[in-house]
Amino acid sequence: MSLVAPQGIPHEPDIVIIGAGPAGLTAAIYASRSGLSSVVLEKAIPGGQVSITPMVENWPGEKNIPGARLMEMMTAQAREYTDIRENEAVKNIKIGRKMEVMTNKRAYSARALIFATGAEHLKLGVPGEEKFLGRGVSYCATCDGFLYKDRSVLVAGGGNSALTDALYLVSLGARVTVVHRREELRAEKRLQDLFARTESPILFDTVVEEILGAAHVESARLRNLKADTAYQMPVDGVFIAIGETPASDIAKEIGVLVDTEGFIKVDRSMRTNIPRVYACGDVTGGVRQIVTAVGTGAVAALSAFEDLENPYWKKKLE
Amino acid sequence: MSLVAPQGIPHEPDIVIIGAGPAGLTAAIYASRSGLSSVVLEKAIPGGQVSITPMVENWPGEKNIPGARLMEMMTAQAREYTDIRENEAVKNIKIGRKMEVMTNKRAYSARALIFATGAEHLKLGVPGEEKFLGRGVSYCATCDGFLYKDRSVLVAGGGNSALTDALYLVSLGARVTVVHRREELRAEKRLQDLFARTESPILFDTVVEEILGAAHVESARLRNLKADTAYQMPVDGVFIAIGETPASDIAKEIGVLVDTEGFIKVDRSMRTNIPRVYACGDVTGGVRQIVTAVGTGAVAALSAFEDLENPYWKKKLE
Repeated sequence: MSLVAPQGIPHEPDIVIIGAGPAGLTAAIYASRSGLSSVVLEKAIPGGQVSITPMVENWPGEKNIPGARLMEMMTAQAREYTDIRENEAVKNIKIGRKMEVMTNKRAYSARALIFATGAEHLKLGVPGEEKFLGRGVSYCATCDGFLYKDRSVLVAGGGNSALTDALYLVSLGARVTVVHRREELRAEKRLQDLFARTESPILFDTVVEEILGAAHVESARLRNLKADTAYQMPVDGVFIAIGETPASDIAKEIGVLVDTEGFIKVDRSMRTNIPRVYACGDVTGGVRQIVTAVGTGAVAALSAFEDLENPYWKKKLE
Repeated sequence: MSLVAPQGIPHEPDIVIIGAGPAGLTAAIYASRSGLSSVVLEKAIPGGQVSITPMVENWPGEKNIPGARLMEMMTAQAREYTDIRENEAVKNIKIGRKMEVMTNKRAYSARALIFATGAEHLKLGVPGEEKFLGRGVSYCATCDGFLYKDRSVLVAGGGNSALTDALYLVSLGARVTVVHRREELRAEKRLQDLFARTESPILFDTVVEEILGAAHVESARLRNLKADTAYQMPVDGVFIAIGETPASDIAKEIGVLVDTEGFIKVDRSMRTNIPRVYACGDVTGGVRQIVTAVGTGAVAALSAFEDLENPYWKKKLE
């Protein structure tokens, strides 16, 4: 990998936005509408995690819309305002009066940076998991739990997210079984106590080996690791909550502070600890919904505007 | 006015949401999807301030959409999840184990309350102001400033919002004149200094008397109050930033804390100082955009879910 920009002189937008999910695209719309030029760098294709969400039902104004379609619409709008560069991954950043951003393709020199890099759900990596995504398999109880009233679901995982999701599903009226590979939960005591009161079963030392069904999930094959026995359990849904990895590695490298789970720390104006570096969307944690991603994206861009258009700063940066 | 519920036994949803703008409607969608029943009380018709916004260009996914149309879409979706009661104004609230809400029509008894009551822009109250709304007259520089690059605009007002809007418009490349009815600005020193550096004119002791044009704003008639002389000034736009009134009176009455401008104080989870009372959207201040309204609406509902579904609370409330 060469760190030399293939095309010589770096591009010089006011803001480099990293990530073209709902947060990054909204930040770009707001940045441009406030008069700041921007470029959005996307390591793959625009849309973020929403693009692989079969059906979105909680985006205000759309009763149900395929995630890919919603992101096509957002991307089309954002292209009216900004330059979205696909398949362009950030390799290296140098913070300073000018922010130097090096990608696999070229170099940028900007006045501000917005991290909208998102987070990724960890996968079980078992047969059926991909096939039944959106048809019984879900990584987001808040998004999809609604469909499971009076139905049986597994929640795979033993941490805070798993128990939070499990509690959420119980409150929706689902019959929940938690499946955890270890012999005790990692979730905090308070959540364990709350969950115990629901009297829902927890299968310890157990893993999901395969997810089965026809058009929709119908059962899961589970294995008890201690007894080393496998068995099939009929279920209508499998919620996978074994962790989420915020894409904050590059941010960490340049000194941006993150929390214990790796989510970027921001204040209410989406400023990080480094001046003229902002973050928004899933990489900042929180409830991780499309509506919160767009809200924080707008706030990040407007904070950048406030900082950059402050004539004191401006002079220093020119 | 009688405080007796016309229909005897009060309705008992889990949550009463006050206000059917983007924040309240999104809160209702998220509340219902988490298994909580809700009712949305709207003193007029659903939609909030967006309904009277001629064209919205910064809602992700829609290049441009009439505000009324966008709110029709959001309202239709929310009706799938909640009961929206139009022309129902809250008259009185009693906080307690149960939150008793009395409207002009009936009584409700809920476990939690969400204030999504919005804020209203103050109007100049001059001829042409209403007629040219969306055609040169605007109350939101962040929303509409984009159209005024290289054009002349007036900003009416002398406080922080007026100067923030004026700076924003200058940065977009508009030629800005501030018109203020008093002999000095009310805005904080820092903003005054920043604005002074733009070398844009400020007309003190001056009011907008009339806004004129054909299809679009073409000029404004101004009056210098000291000299008592009127004159016409050609302009392409008039941004009115003379203040905003958050609809927080009822919240204040029950002890919810507000800031110096009357916006409801919330933490990042949209909790107010009173347990099981939340607020979201414009009534909480901030950048007051549709994207932030929906984001905070979802967060308020999910926080209510967290609090109400905590079995400790639940037991107390049953």
